[in-house]
Amino acid sequence: MDLHCPILPTDNDTVRLGHGSGGAMTQRLLTDYIQPLFNNTWISQAHDSATLPWNTDRLVFTTDSFVVTPLFFPGGNIGELAVYGTVNDLAMAGAEPKFLSCGLILEEGLPMVTLKRVLQSMAKAAQSTGVMLVTGDTKVVERGKGDGIYINTSGVGQQISQWPIEPGRICRGDVILLSGDIGRHGIAVMASREGLEFESNLTSDCAPLNRAVAELIQAGVEIHCLRDLTRGGLATALVELAESCGKTFSLDESRIPVSEAVEGACEILGLDPLYVANEGRFVAFVPESSSKLATSILRGTVAGSLCEIIGRVGDGDHPQVALKNSLGCDRLLQRLPGEQLPRIC
Amino acid sequence: MDLHCPILPTDNDTVRLGHGSGGAMTQRLLTDYIQPLFNNTWISQAHDSATLPWNTDRLVFTTDSFVVTPLFFPGGNIGELAVYGTVNDLAMAGAEPKFLSCGLILEEGLPMVTLKRVLQSMAKAAQSTGVMLVTGDTKVVERGKGDGIYINTSGVGQQISQWPIEPGRICRGDVILLSGDIGRHGIAVMASREGLEFESNLTSDCAPLNRAVAELIQAGVEIHCLRDLTRGGLATALVELAESCGKTFSLDESRIPVSEAVEGACEILGLDPLYVANEGRFVAFVPESSSKLATSILRGTVAGSLCEIIGRVGDGDHPQVALKNSLGCDRLLQRLPGEQLPRIC
Repeated sequence: MDLHCPILPTDNDTVRLGHGSGGAMTQRLLTDYIQPLFNNTWISQAHDSATLPWNTDRLVFTTDSFVVTPLFFPGGNIGELAVYGTVNDLAMAGAEPKFLSCGLILEEGLPMVTLKRVLQSMAKAAQSTGVMLVTGDTKVVERGKGDGIYINTSGVGQQISQWPIEPGRICRGDVILLSGDIGRHGIAVMASREGLEFESNLTSDCAPLNRAVAELIQAGVEIHCLRDLTRGGLATALVELAESCGKTFSLDESRIPVSEAVEGACEILGLDPLYVANEGRFVAFVPESSSKLATSILRGTVAGSLCEIIGRVGDGDHPQVALKNSLGCDRLLQRLPGEQLPRIC
Repeated sequence: MDLHCPILPTDNDTVRLGHGSGGAMTQRLLTDYIQPLFNNTWISQAHDSATLPWNTDRLVFTTDSFVVTPLFFPGGNIGELAVYGTVNDLAMAGAEPKFLSCGLILEEGLPMVTLKRVLQSMAKAAQSTGVMLVTGDTKVVERGKGDGIYINTSGVGQQISQWPIEPGRICRGDVILLSGDIGRHGIAVMASREGLEFESNLTSDCAPLNRAVAELIQAGVEIHCLRDLTRGGLATALVELAESCGKTFSLDESRIPVSEAVEGACEILGLDPLYVANEGRFVAFVPESSSKLATSILRGTVAGSLCEIIGRVGDGDHPQVALKNSLGCDRLLQRLPGEQLPRIC
């Protein structure tokens, strides 16, 4: 499916911003450089987290570094993002987030008050999601070798779903739910970075997803797969999943919620909302029989109040994502090829 | 005991290189900024890792970011360091390292061959220590916002010692073992960074410590506490431990192994080897009755072949570390006050 990856990394090449896009170039880095070296079940699965055996239990382990710029943006900051991002990766594997680590890389000259504000946000975010930050590390680099604060968080969670929640369980006929409107995080960060002002007060969708997932599990919804939409947006996430499970997804563009503000900003900036980053949105694959229950539960949660059924898993054996637009035409989606908005998370 | 911390962080202050030294300024950052916000047993303990309840089991969780410059130095590189550093933190809690995460922050323009070499070293180091790298993340920052490669590794291990190995278990009369000669990592990195040439081929001590610890545990040595010597060197590690357990340590300077090369380099550079960083050395606190067995086991391992008994835990209730020099005079050690060699790991 990587039809449109014009820039392949080779040994003569250098790292480019697109390698951090979460799209096709990141994927190539993973398949060409990392997977051959770290050859184990979990790295090969290329999930956002690893579900590991731990005696009779299942432990979920994940990591993410956060390099967003600016550090503070409408609706959030790097501290919240660092907690929610990792909590969400655990939740997407059907795990209850339990423990978090925090690795800080600070740039010399960063005002202490900035650090304090970021740490306060992390503490508040950790408390609100019920995860405990239990271990950490701080490094400082010289001026001009960093950009204020970079944060790595890694997380450990305990699988609470009775079955694994993973791309391999996606079935023909599954309904695809989207938890809310897309593109707000990417546009909010970009607007803040570029000093753009839009009519409405557009804020990031940055939010924790673990409560919504826990409610689905507790209600007995048979979740086949979950994926949060981050770098690369809805389109990239769905293409990745279609490739992982080898199935065809059909989406109805008119059912995908996009706020007027995001729509307008995307038009001005020449962006496609389907590829714009989110930090508090996810897709869920559930059997038809559970879709009504799942939708009604999600609509009752903060994170899923705008939940919509946006498509279905079709009968085709070809891994592809087809989007039907308002004219009834199908457009095949691809991963984000290069970089759209660098340092969005 | 923080008698000599001339620079205290205040809200009007900015982050300085010393905040990443592992010494007194790092400690202040922890006690003044981080511990009040993340108020739980594990953060309060200020260990290098957290030992967490997991059903009937004990799970050990730790994190470290690596920003060493240059990326390649005599005896190692950032990739090995990133694996061994986290593996060692797990080992120091009496845990068998099981799973590792890897968060890369790459600077735009980094040659792909450099990335490849670093990843190859990580893979080799992971294999040699028996740990599995199971999850990862890659971010790319613009030129001038990083320095080639920064790596975070977090680790999950399973406690294999029957009792906790922690500062609180240090007892009066305990013997203090040092696993080998000190200061090679710091001097090797500094020499390489500054283009200094010494007569001998001085290489970093960068090495995994988990096998040596596992051998001690399997032989039934009653280990009370372990600590690997990293930033801040032997002196800072021992002062931290003395403060944690509230006891007095007496060291015999003549028993502390320092290679001629390190001794000579330190004289030229005006450094004290007691404060120079190590990446493959640790101290062990064991009861007198176990000290002979522990020494003989360690001397049979690669990491502990130069093991020496360097001191004892005394009767005093005052948390201090007294070093008896060759003239028989006692000198009280303190934490490294500011920064000695930035970005050593």
